Amino acid sequence: MDVGTLLGVFGCLGLVLGAIMMGGSILAFVDVPSILIVIGGVVLVTFVMFPMQTVFNSFKVAMKTLFSSAPDPTRIISQILDLANLARRESLVALEKASVDNEFLNKGVLLVADGTEESLLRSILETEIAFMRQRHSYGQNILKQMGNMSPAFGMIGTLIGLINMLGALDDPSNIGPAMAVALLTTFYGAVMANVLFLPMATKLEARSAEEVLYMEIIVEGVVSILHGENPRLLQDKLEAFLTPAKRTGGD
Amino acid sequence: MDVGTLLGVFGCLGLVLGAIMMGGSILAFVDVPSILIVIGGVVLVTFVMFPMQTVFNSFKVAMKTLFSSAPDPTRIISQILDLANLARRESLVALEKASVDNEFLNKGVLLVADGTEESLLRSILETEIAFMRQRHSYGQNILKQMGNMSPAFGMIGTLIGLINMLGALDDPSNIGPAMAVALLTTFYGAVMANVLFLPMATKLEARSAEEVLYMEIIVEGVVSILHGENPRLLQDKLEAFLTPAKRTGGD
Amino acid sequence: MDVGTLLGVFGCLGLVLGAIMMGGSILAFVDVPSILIVIGGVVLVTFVMFPMQTVFNSFKVAMKTLFSSAPDPTRIISQILDLANLARRESLVALEKASVDNEFLNKGVLLVADGTEESLLRSILETEIAFMRQRHSYGQNILKQMGNMSPAFGMIGTLIGLINMLGALDDPSNIGPAMAVALLTTFYGAVMANVLFLPMATKLEARSAEEVLYMEIIVEGVVSILHGENPRLLQDKLEAFLTPAKRTGGD
Amino acid sequence: MDVGTLLGVFGCLGLVLGAIMMGGSILAFVDVPSILIVIGGVVLVTFVMFPMQTVFNSFKVAMKTLFSSAPDPTRIISQILDLANLARRESLVALEKASVDNEFLNKGVLLVADGTEESLLRSILETEIAFMRQRHSYGQNILKQMGNMSPAFGMIGTLIGLINMLGALDDPSNIGPAMAVALLTTFYGAVMANVLFLPMATKLEARSAEEVLYMEIIVEGVVSILHGENPRLLQDKLEAFLTPAKRTGGD
Amino acid sequence: MDVGTLLGVFGCLGLVLGAIMMGGSILAFVDVPSILIVIGGVVLVTFVMFPMQTVFNSFKVAMKTLFSSAPDPTRIISQILDLANLARRESLVALEKASVDNEFLNKGVLLVADGTEESLLRSILETEIAFMRQRHSYGQNILKQMGNMSPAFGMIGTLIGLINMLGALDDPSNIGPAMAVALLTTFYGAVMANVLFLPMATKLEARSAEEVLYMEIIVEGVVSILHGENPRLLQDKLEAFLTPAKRTGGD
Repeated sequence: MDVGTLLGVFGCLGLVLGAIMMGGSILAFVDVPSILIVIGGVVLVTFVMFPMQTVFNSFKVAMKTLFSSAPDPTRIISQILDLANLARRESLVALEKASVDNEFLNKGVLLVADGTEESLLRSILETEIAFMRQRHSYGQNILKQMGNMSPAFGMIGTLIGLINMLGALDDPSNIGPAMAVALLTTFYGAVMANVLFLPMATKLEARSAEEVLYMEIIVEGVVSILHGENPRLLQDKLEAFLTPAKRTGGD
Repeated sequence: MDVGTLLGVFGCLGLVLGAIMMGGSILAFVDVPSILIVIGGVVLVTFVMFPMQTVFNSFKVAMKTLFSSAPDPTRIISQILDLANLARRESLVALEKASVDNEFLNKGVLLVADGTEESLLRSILETEIAFMRQRHSYGQNILKQMGNMSPAFGMIGTLIGLINMLGALDDPSNIGPAMAVALLTTFYGAVMANVLFLPMATKLEARSAEEVLYMEIIVEGVVSILHGENPRLLQDKLEAFLTPAKRTGGD
Repeated sequence: MDVGTLLGVFGCLGLVLGAIMMGGSILAFVDVPSILIVIGGVVLVTFVMFPMQTVFNSFKVAMKTLFSSAPDPTRIISQILDLANLARRESLVALEKASVDNEFLNKGVLLVADGTEESLLRSILETEIAFMRQRHSYGQNILKQMGNMSPAFGMIGTLIGLINMLGALDDPSNIGPAMAVALLTTFYGAVMANVLFLPMATKLEARSAEEVLYMEIIVEGVVSILHGENPRLLQDKLEAFLTPAKRTGGD
Repeated sequence: MDVGTLLGVFGCLGLVLGAIMMGGSILAFVDVPSILIVIGGVVLVTFVMFPMQTVFNSFKVAMKTLFSSAPDPTRIISQILDLANLARRESLVALEKASVDNEFLNKGVLLVADGTEESLLRSILETEIAFMRQRHSYGQNILKQMGNMSPAFGMIGTLIGLINMLGALDDPSNIGPAMAVALLTTFYGAVMANVLFLPMATKLEARSAEEVLYMEIIVEGVVSILHGENPRLLQDKLEAFLTPAKRTGGD
Repeated sequence: MDVGTLLGVFGCLGLVLGAIMMGGSILAFVDVPSILIVIGGVVLVTFVMFPMQTVFNSFKVAMKTLFSSAPDPTRIISQILDLANLARRESLVALEKASVDNEFLNKGVLLVADGTEESLLRSILETEIAFMRQRHSYGQNILKQMGNMSPAFGMIGTLIGLINMLGALDDPSNIGPAMAVALLTTFYGAVMANVLFLPMATKLEARSAEEVLYMEIIVEGVVSILHGENPRLLQDKLEAFLTPAKRTGGD
């Protein structure tokens, strides 16, 4: 569970609700047609911008990435070292029976146990990395475009409200509440863009870079297991991928 | 028929109409001079921005791409495999009589049946891909620029309306309706840009990438047929272009 | 004469005039000090942004390119073929007496008649292309910056009008007309940027790409004449530069 | 202590306070809920945009860099020359006992004293430079995004205030003060973005380039010490990294 | 003296003054606290954005470049030809006594007279060019960022004015003048950005490209003098750097 995403999103929404309630009633900020035109408009226009199937897939990938916590690189490295020790004590074939929870590491280990050559092993695992990176970048692009479209549909809703209000300007005492309702869609659009879509697109970028790093650590580790490298040297090699603070020995 | 484009465009327009009718009359949103200046202005300024012939051609290409459904890659791969089997059973010349509905695949197959060499075959087919990509990118650029010009002409129309209204400020009861009409062009411009032009430019980009992918699958397939490669290996090779979910064997 | 540029510019201006006259009088949109500050300001600030001599030269180049019609590539190719035939029938020296209206083709043909070697010939002609491309890109940059400065000076004019009006708010009945005048500069700036400068910068880019293409066709043609290549093969080679629709044989 | 950052930030805040107090009371510009929504919103949304641990680390790095003064390159060069003389007079091993306050230079000198080879020495030191550059660029990106989010949360706060005010428009005499409070969040967002976050991101970029330059001088110096180069030639070599004005001999 | 920069800046300011005086009094546009917050804020925030020493140096460089007239390339070429003739008539050493006013050409000539080898000569002169280009690009970046900050501080000033005015809305007759004063900072910011900072950043870019060109002509010329090349060939070589219109022989 990624604490930051949840804390940030619900904290921001809490602050917004607090600010609303300090100055008036929350009911004044709920207007079903306004909600429909902004949320509905942004969702529908996403299907004009991207193939439908891609939207569903990328969204699933994005949500999983945003709300799951990042894998712990030191845990992955210690798992790789255990596997390297196992392979040296017994044999590469023994790896087949090892239970590995990380799906990507598992795939690599099974390929090693099958006696796959280094060049093929690297090519298979790096293709996987490339596909994951592409899926993430697609998800990121979709979130960014939804973030751009939210204020646009907010403005369209506000223009509809203003034109309706101005065209029927009989009762001046009605102007205030009508303008309040017209501004609601601009408010919804601003919150959706700046609390949800745009920040999530930024987080997805950082998270994608992290996952690529972990997968690259795994590729190096698996290739070293295949060559039966010394686990102590292997640890140094893998920890070079980490920032100094995260290395076991410090430096 | 691309369901997403149609659903998105008509869904958004439906939401906009719904929001209009909940708060007033649809008639208040129809003003012929306002429609003329925004739609007419955007169309005319497109001829200042791009050569006329290019505008017409690119528009045709863009519409065909946006509203036709994407070719199914698995169907194309199975067609290529059928042709590969035919060529191995009979001969390359037999391909001439095969009926292939995909125009690009057909062109490639006829070249193979004519005994064209690999290097020439690749060069002819890749030139075709390059031209298609260029036509798509031209169409995309035109849609993007029309999307940028729509709010600009909306603002020009609103400024004309405001200046006219302010210059003749005799009857205060007239201000509201006059401002409502002035805002109409801003509204038209916002809807045109954010429901039509900009999202379509984004979809065209995704669709163009898809078509290029399918054409590259066809180039690889046709070259393999020319070399009489094993259809089983050919299938693996072509499916490597697809995301894992779409491969026949999964992975 | 480039029909698109003229049709677009005058069509847009016509639409703007029509919209003005439907809602009021054209006289309300003419204010000499407002015209002075926007047009004068944009012209003067261009001399701060670019060396004066460059502004004059680039402007001349841009106007010539925008309002002249594009050369017809098929006519150029047929001219090159005539020259190739002439050179094969008589001799390279005979080219000296051929009358060629395209200045760049003429230069190339004279160099061939003088017996210039291929490498020198290419280098001279490609330097010419590079210079033309640079002049066009300079002109394009100037138009783009003028397009950015137009709304800025429009806003400066409107701010002056608003501050003057607000500072002397004695007679409320005067507010409307004063604000109308203040908004005029914003209106002028929006029209100048979106009907003239920005669209022309975009057209100049497309037109420059076209001219470069024609000049590259000429370079290939002139080099082939120098080598005495077969005119039939030469035609195929030159038409490969064109989109399929424009080739004589179709494809 | 970087005088510029402190002078700029406190000078700007002083000017803002002065302008506030000349036209009214500072109390009118303090509103706790408004402060909460802008500052709280920007901080919380940063945790949606970046992994929490990264935010804390990068912030610490950024602050240290912004408020500490830049190292003096001539002092570093003279320190390197002293070390070079020491190494030539005594031996490379003697460097171990030299006291060097610059941490990076110290690390390099110890590696030389340990007899590390040039290629390994360079690789270790350049990895360090790459890590520092990455930490700085992360910090810069976080500051930039906080600068983009500040006006966005300012606008969200203002929209909440406006909608609350317009929905309860009973007492016209209340409009002014309510709008003043609504505008406060826009004001806070503008000051935070333009006085703090965006300028600091720009400074961090310049400061990072400076530090990289000093570290590159140290790498060259340490390698020269390893090779026992002539200190006079070493000085020329290191001063070539400086602008002419900072060189001892001028030029 | 660069006529364009002066004409443009003072012409624009003249137009602005004219527009102000046609509609009111120039006194209504002078407000000391408003001037302080915009000009003072932009200057102070520049010290947050860039190291102080860099700001002062770059500003000096930028001003010298903007207000001095561009060197005349044909004059430089004729000077180089004179020096080449002198070196051929007498000797390379004779160059030492030649009086050359262009500082960069002088430096190159002295190096030649000292018998510097070509590779060292080129490296020294090109380092000089690289440093100048970097100083110019730094100055340009500072001007651009000041241009971005001017409207931001204009808006901050206007928000302070508006909040003060709205919070003390007792006397309605006071609204107009108070809003006029509040808008002054927006006006100052718009003029500073669009008449001074942004256009000067653009001019500095063009001027820097010109100076680099002249310095490259000098490098080629000095190297040719070193090799004792034929002055006639040297002239052709150097004029190839100029646009056709500026060459002595035309083409």
